[in-house]
Amino acid sequence: MTVRQLALPDLSAHCARLGIPGIGLWREPVQAYGVEAAAKLVRDAGLTVTTLCRGGFLTATDPAERARALDDNRAAIDEAETLGTDTLVLVSGGLPAGDRDLGGARERIADALAELAPYAGERGVRLAIEPLHPMFASDRCVVSTLDQALGLAERFPASQVGVVVDTYHIWWDDRAPAAVERAGAQGRIHSFQLADWITPLPAGVLNGRGQIGDGAIDMARWRERVDAAGYDGPIEVELFNDELWARDGVELLEETARRYAHALKATSPH
Amino acid sequence: MTVRQLALPDLSAHCARLGIPGIGLWREPVQAYGVEAAAKLVRDAGLTVTTLCRGGFLTATDPAERARALDDNRAAIDEAETLGTDTLVLVSGGLPAGDRDLGGARERIADALAELAPYAGERGVRLAIEPLHPMFASDRCVVSTLDQALGLAERFPASQVGVVVDTYHIWWDDRAPAAVERAGAQGRIHSFQLADWITPLPAGVLNGRGQIGDGAIDMARWRERVDAAGYDGPIEVELFNDELWARDGVELLEETARRYAHALKATSPH
Repeated sequence: MTVRQLALPDLSAHCARLGIPGIGLWREPVQAYGVEAAAKLVRDAGLTVTTLCRGGFLTATDPAERARALDDNRAAIDEAETLGTDTLVLVSGGLPAGDRDLGGARERIADALAELAPYAGERGVRLAIEPLHPMFASDRCVVSTLDQALGLAERFPASQVGVVVDTYHIWWDDRAPAAVERAGAQGRIHSFQLADWITPLPAGVLNGRGQIGDGAIDMARWRERVDAAGYDGPIEVELFNDELWARDGVELLEETARRYAHALKATSPH
Repeated sequence: MTVRQLALPDLSAHCARLGIPGIGLWREPVQAYGVEAAAKLVRDAGLTVTTLCRGGFLTATDPAERARALDDNRAAIDEAETLGTDTLVLVSGGLPAGDRDLGGARERIADALAELAPYAGERGVRLAIEPLHPMFASDRCVVSTLDQALGLAERFPASQVGVVVDTYHIWWDDRAPAAVERAGAQGRIHSFQLADWITPLPAGVLNGRGQIGDGAIDMARWRERVDAAGYDGPIEVELFNDELWARDGVELLEETARRYAHALKATSPH
């Protein structure tokens, strides 16, 4: 998504050229290209698919809507298996219209996971609950903290359900470092994603994530925490940013690779 | 601030007419009108000043900037005393440019409070730390949760330092209800403010607070929590909203009074 202006063949070729060993894919471009074809393309480039984004949106109260969401998540799990990735990222969903009960919505997510987790487990796919920043709590994801995500994940085997640690969403939370440690000890860190926090936020707040190094987040410190928690999986950069998307994709990919290397190499005084 | 299009005399007169017993004031219009004159105006209308907004911005690392902030906060405390309110709301401040250490910034707030709290206490003014929504953590307020605010306040006597419970900032936080209970037990709920959460957020995210009843927050439930915690002080409505500010101020004030009465009267199923 960071360089969504690049088509899958260009993305794969340039990642391989730059020594980027894997890519996180989103369902829409994969479906447009063809799931099997995308799997072959990435494999032939010598890359892995780190994660598939995204399943989720499991908070509906309407039975038909809920059934459609479960079907769609099973399809996403199948796609993940075909792509050869072991991780499907879940964005849990917001409050239904007129609903004001965050706790109830979180319980509906747990109910849905109970149906989806075994299905995923049978296919070698782990569901990774991504807490989204609290500014998305009403309309996108009622799971706002790593503690909440972990509280949901812990009801299931770690081989089936875990969490995403994304700096953009949790950087402000003084309880997140302890949650990272706990998630790591349980083998539940299924993805580690980076984006920087910059202001002012744009209207709608979705597409204002900062290039690594441009913002307020101490990336090196978060990497130390995730490392210390025992995570040795891929680290993804996931930027949603209209200004970055307006630039040349290859140039942006190269800049992102440089920023990543610089930020995670830097020593941190904290 | 909800009806900032109304000048202080109109605000006071219409609040008195509508049976609104008190108003929270902001420093800028008070200073423009004259602090003593504003105090007399509100008093003569038969109203109380519930709180003064705002002090704070205590996170500077530069010594001169820090000294200016402390001076300004002492002036705000003096103004609160003159206005006859017992509560000065603090917005703590964001990260200095280039700083990525939220914990360090929070400690600088504690250091500043150690200087300001006795000064406030001597003047019968309580400092009320307002946690702001995490979307303001970098540029406006590094205190993002009620737990963090309470953790700072607890270092000082409750007669000097407490917290603001503002639905807009804490509604998403599953730990906030317990923090409300703890704050109440300690006598540290110094202000209770209402605004509703609506989306999409506008650019800059500052002026998108929703009219009571328009959004995702269960106001009646929050009032029950604050009541149960023993709070019996004023309840303020504090809306920052460009669309509301563009409307006729008297009409908006009347609407807000109606919405307030309706929302807090409603029963809640949770």
